[in-house]
Amino acid sequence: MSAIDKFDERAEAVKSLLCVGLDSDMEKLPERFQKYEQPQFNFNRWIIEQTHEHTASYKFNMAFYEARGPEGLKELQLTLDYLQQRHPDIFTICDAKRGDIDNTNRGYVEEIFDWLGFDAVTLHPYLGQEALQPFLSRADKGCIVLCRTSNPGAGEFQDLMAGGLPLWQIVAKRVHEAWNTNHNCMLVVGATYPEEIKKVREITGDMTLLVPGIGAQGGSVAEVMQTGLNSQRSGLIIHSARGIIFAENPAEEAKRLKEDINGYR
Amino acid sequence: MSAIDKFDERAEAVKSLLCVGLDSDMEKLPERFQKYEQPQFNFNRWIIEQTHEHTASYKFNMAFYEARGPEGLKELQLTLDYLQQRHPDIFTICDAKRGDIDNTNRGYVEEIFDWLGFDAVTLHPYLGQEALQPFLSRADKGCIVLCRTSNPGAGEFQDLMAGGLPLWQIVAKRVHEAWNTNHNCMLVVGATYPEEIKKVREITGDMTLLVPGIGAQGGSVAEVMQTGLNSQRSGLIIHSARGIIFAENPAEEAKRLKEDINGYR
Repeated sequence: MSAIDKFDERAEAVKSLLCVGLDSDMEKLPERFQKYEQPQFNFNRWIIEQTHEHTASYKFNMAFYEARGPEGLKELQLTLDYLQQRHPDIFTICDAKRGDIDNTNRGYVEEIFDWLGFDAVTLHPYLGQEALQPFLSRADKGCIVLCRTSNPGAGEFQDLMAGGLPLWQIVAKRVHEAWNTNHNCMLVVGATYPEEIKKVREITGDMTLLVPGIGAQGGSVAEVMQTGLNSQRSGLIIHSARGIIFAENPAEEAKRLKEDINGYR
Repeated sequence: MSAIDKFDERAEAVKSLLCVGLDSDMEKLPERFQKYEQPQFNFNRWIIEQTHEHTASYKFNMAFYEARGPEGLKELQLTLDYLQQRHPDIFTICDAKRGDIDNTNRGYVEEIFDWLGFDAVTLHPYLGQEALQPFLSRADKGCIVLCRTSNPGAGEFQDLMAGGLPLWQIVAKRVHEAWNTNHNCMLVVGATYPEEIKKVREITGDMTLLVPGIGAQGGSVAEVMQTGLNSQRSGLIIHSARGIIFAENPAEEAKRLKEDINGYR
């Protein structure tokens, strides 16, 4: 089964396009988890048990684990193992934003796809298709390329006009038309830029889009859903982290956001 | 002392612009190191003792350590500790090619600058200055931004023309004119693109450039030196990894390349 099929099946099974971000920043963990020997793993396990029935996917930003060195990586591995055992049908994304030259990317492929066992990874486009081939050639895994990022200053280079199109649209076109020979490509488009989501949807047909920026960053579910759904009324992985995992009641927040999203399908 | 001053002082002290890449790919380590419990650390220590008198800098590509998970990170840390104790004046570069949104980059800053103690890191420009602020605001550390990468397919996006300039030149101008308020920015320009090195030198004045791609990738020392030196006859960090560390005699290779470089100063 391809990575994108795995996401679609899970989204269908639980009727959810939600992706919960396990961005388990040590400084923000509730106090009761700080005392564990493995605070991030224990917190993640708790969040997973609270939220799994409402989510199609979990995304892990590597920075929050790498900040703790080998211990953080170990707890990320334990979390992935736990998901693999208990909820193997949930789609897992490694938000690593990698992108090196060909030879070197193989190390990241080993780490992220083989050792940790993620279903998909986020990638920087700057080095081009040729460099990213070790990721792209893995037909069993998803390659989620940064197109229009959610941050306020995203336009500095992404909005540069080249041949009548902004760079982010050229990235969308290249990934759609040239990089996607294994049908394993997706794109990142921030919820904070709904006009850009609409345009990327036009450019890429039914391609699945990862949409961060809901909640803490200010993106609106209504705008994302009105601009981003594909012809199957799906094709969106809608990500929220802080707004769910650090809420008083993560289960309730995940359910609320899932239902909010479903209200527009 | 700023990171760039540290590089300049070391380069002056050992009369070398060489940067040895400790890209200690497990599959390529000599057999005698494979048997150690800490093969990468033992190999690195040997290479450091063989090459330190000829090198201004060591660069570590994270992918080769992350490929082994927590063990690899641990051995990277041991290597950095060893350098800190024995050769604290050697400039250390973490070739991590990171670039996330503001909030998240702080995790990488903690890992790379504080926990591992690197002097500099390589960064993807795609998210813009605002996103990279947690790196850029560290005036004590170096931020080495990808401008023109050494890979054959680098031009896919980097050569796009926007307002009369290719993207890689716009990146060079932005970093030089706007990002460098803490005088801690450098740029990556591949040795495989000497015309681009020449242009980046024109755009950025005396900015220090990290130049990978000598040796295995086909870049020429003569062309790099003829196009890249700044007004101080310096400003270049010339990187070679495989050509030195997997050579029969790494000390001899490092010395030969150092002298080859010095022949053009």
